[in-house]
Amino acid sequence: MTYSRKNIAAMAGYVPGEQPQGRTFVKLNTNENPYPPSPKVGEALASFDVSRLRLYSEPSAARVRRAASEVLGLRPENYLIGNGSDDLLTIALRTFVDQGGVAAYTEPSYSLYPVLAELQGAQRRPVELTADFGLPSADELLARLEGATLFLVANPNAPTGNLLSRETLREVARRFAGVLWIDEAYADFSGQTCLDFVGEFPNVVVSRTLSKSYSLAGLRLGIACSSESIIFEMNKVKDSYNVDMVAQALAEAALRDQAYMRGNAQRIVATRRRVTERLREMGCDVLPSEANFIFVRPPQPAPAVFAGLRERGYLVRYFALPRIDDRIRVTMGTDAEMDGFLSAMAEILGVGQA
Amino acid sequence: MTYSRKNIAAMAGYVPGEQPQGRTFVKLNTNENPYPPSPKVGEALASFDVSRLRLYSEPSAARVRRAASEVLGLRPENYLIGNGSDDLLTIALRTFVDQGGVAAYTEPSYSLYPVLAELQGAQRRPVELTADFGLPSADELLARLEGATLFLVANPNAPTGNLLSRETLREVARRFAGVLWIDEAYADFSGQTCLDFVGEFPNVVVSRTLSKSYSLAGLRLGIACSSESIIFEMNKVKDSYNVDMVAQALAEAALRDQAYMRGNAQRIVATRRRVTERLREMGCDVLPSEANFIFVRPPQPAPAVFAGLRERGYLVRYFALPRIDDRIRVTMGTDAEMDGFLSAMAEILGVGQA
Repeated sequence: MTYSRKNIAAMAGYVPGEQPQGRTFVKLNTNENPYPPSPKVGEALASFDVSRLRLYSEPSAARVRRAASEVLGLRPENYLIGNGSDDLLTIALRTFVDQGGVAAYTEPSYSLYPVLAELQGAQRRPVELTADFGLPSADELLARLEGATLFLVANPNAPTGNLLSRETLREVARRFAGVLWIDEAYADFSGQTCLDFVGEFPNVVVSRTLSKSYSLAGLRLGIACSSESIIFEMNKVKDSYNVDMVAQALAEAALRDQAYMRGNAQRIVATRRRVTERLREMGCDVLPSEANFIFVRPPQPAPAVFAGLRERGYLVRYFALPRIDDRIRVTMGTDAEMDGFLSAMAEILGVGQA
Repeated sequence: MTYSRKNIAAMAGYVPGEQPQGRTFVKLNTNENPYPPSPKVGEALASFDVSRLRLYSEPSAARVRRAASEVLGLRPENYLIGNGSDDLLTIALRTFVDQGGVAAYTEPSYSLYPVLAELQGAQRRPVELTADFGLPSADELLARLEGATLFLVANPNAPTGNLLSRETLREVARRFAGVLWIDEAYADFSGQTCLDFVGEFPNVVVSRTLSKSYSLAGLRLGIACSSESIIFEMNKVKDSYNVDMVAQALAEAALRDQAYMRGNAQRIVATRRRVTERLREMGCDVLPSEANFIFVRPPQPAPAVFAGLRERGYLVRYFALPRIDDRIRVTMGTDAEMDGFLSAMAEILGVGQA
């Protein structure tokens, strides 16, 4: 006997990457930033007046929206702030896709997308990426999107790390009858954004998060940027007070310290370059990444490498899914952590360390 | 042209009580607690290590669940923690009610319930309370609930403040084929709870919030208590990391300081008694309240009284809704604030102050 909807009862639910609370691992499994958040965030926390918490938070997170508009462009009215970008993605499904409707998303990509479609009771419409994990042509894409009212695309993609074609995405934005959602969670680690599409097309949403480049995964702060009409509709769906007062204060401080975030992103990009080279020397296939992680096909079975790393205290991510079950996803840690990781890999693969 | 679902496009959206950011009002409009949160909450904030925020929060809020189970009974497995109880209510609709299905709720009650039903694209099934805002008989109720898969009841009720019959609720729990959700946001200001139903019936959820009695509206922390099977299903629907790390730490501290919360609740109950008496002396009808607010029918039109209070710097809540548009809802502030409120009321009503 179950009291839940059929689609819910039939689901296993989304399984987030392991967050070990006991034993100390080097966590390279959930794309967290190895560096702490900006000192300005610490100052904002230290000066936060706890007695204010008796009051509700400002429903629209106005100060965060203002800071976002100053950093990313457009106007505060073009922004919606979420309790993490997962909250925004949930809002997207609930705003744009009927139960029984069609939600499209690239595959392989963020494994939450099909889960959110299932939760909504929507038809799942995966759009297969090409052999090198790129987008198919716009014509093929649009044919595949027939009947869909929402298309979720991560760019750079996860877990593959590569960038998708801006030209194809623009073409889809122009011709797709539904909402094109470009999830730019990792954009600060790449040289590309589609934020400029927002001014150009009414049906494009670009989302960002403070979880990765701003080192604030534990704070839960997502940012959606879109036309005022799309923001207006999503606003109806979001919980009134979805972002708490502490998160609003700390997020504003983080956004206003761009130099710190950029500096960390650059360090991570440099680490990514170095680790990619070393792994290739060890015989691994590493996809070109524009994110804070790399997607690695080791010369031995991925599950065994995953297990070997775990034994040695390194948590990475393995997905038992078609097309990607021969790879592990490795988040970039500090340089010291990655040196340890590389030693562990050399040991597992039985190759010499340079 | 709209990109959203028909039910969303047709909606106005929920309007939360005003959160004025500029001019200073005495806020008696959103049932916030006039006293600051426990000093233990301040200590938890002061000792929070901001560098931890680079990591994701613990998905299940295990320490909050443990504290909740110690304070409220049952086991940690019987709890789900939400980003405010609004998050939990949203999860309830998404878990138990199909688009086109039936969501039932008492009326008048928390004005978010019908909004959540609309957002889900569900049929709204209001269950009219009796003339004195009590529950109809169990037989009448159950007839009215035919076809519904979820029944939302606030107890004490809002905005009326009165307690509903435990016996009738138990009878509904026993005979209703769907989920009975008892929203006990205000229970700490009353002498009653239905938490014991949870051990008795698999289909009962009791929710609590830290927004009112714990003075933490700005933190967003809701607690649902139910059978393990119901919690399991709702867990699939909630966002993985729906409660941020700071909120988890502060919520645990607040729950573990029961003496402080109880002390404040008692002060508010004493204030409620005094203000109720004074308003009755001024010719107001005040419903017997078991919450941290009172529902007042002044001898003059409610909108005029609302406006007169606003002019004098007192924000209260007025609902332009059938059956309750002759009343204002007044949250209990500090004793000094309520003295000022009573003077303003005396002035508006043209009666002498004692």
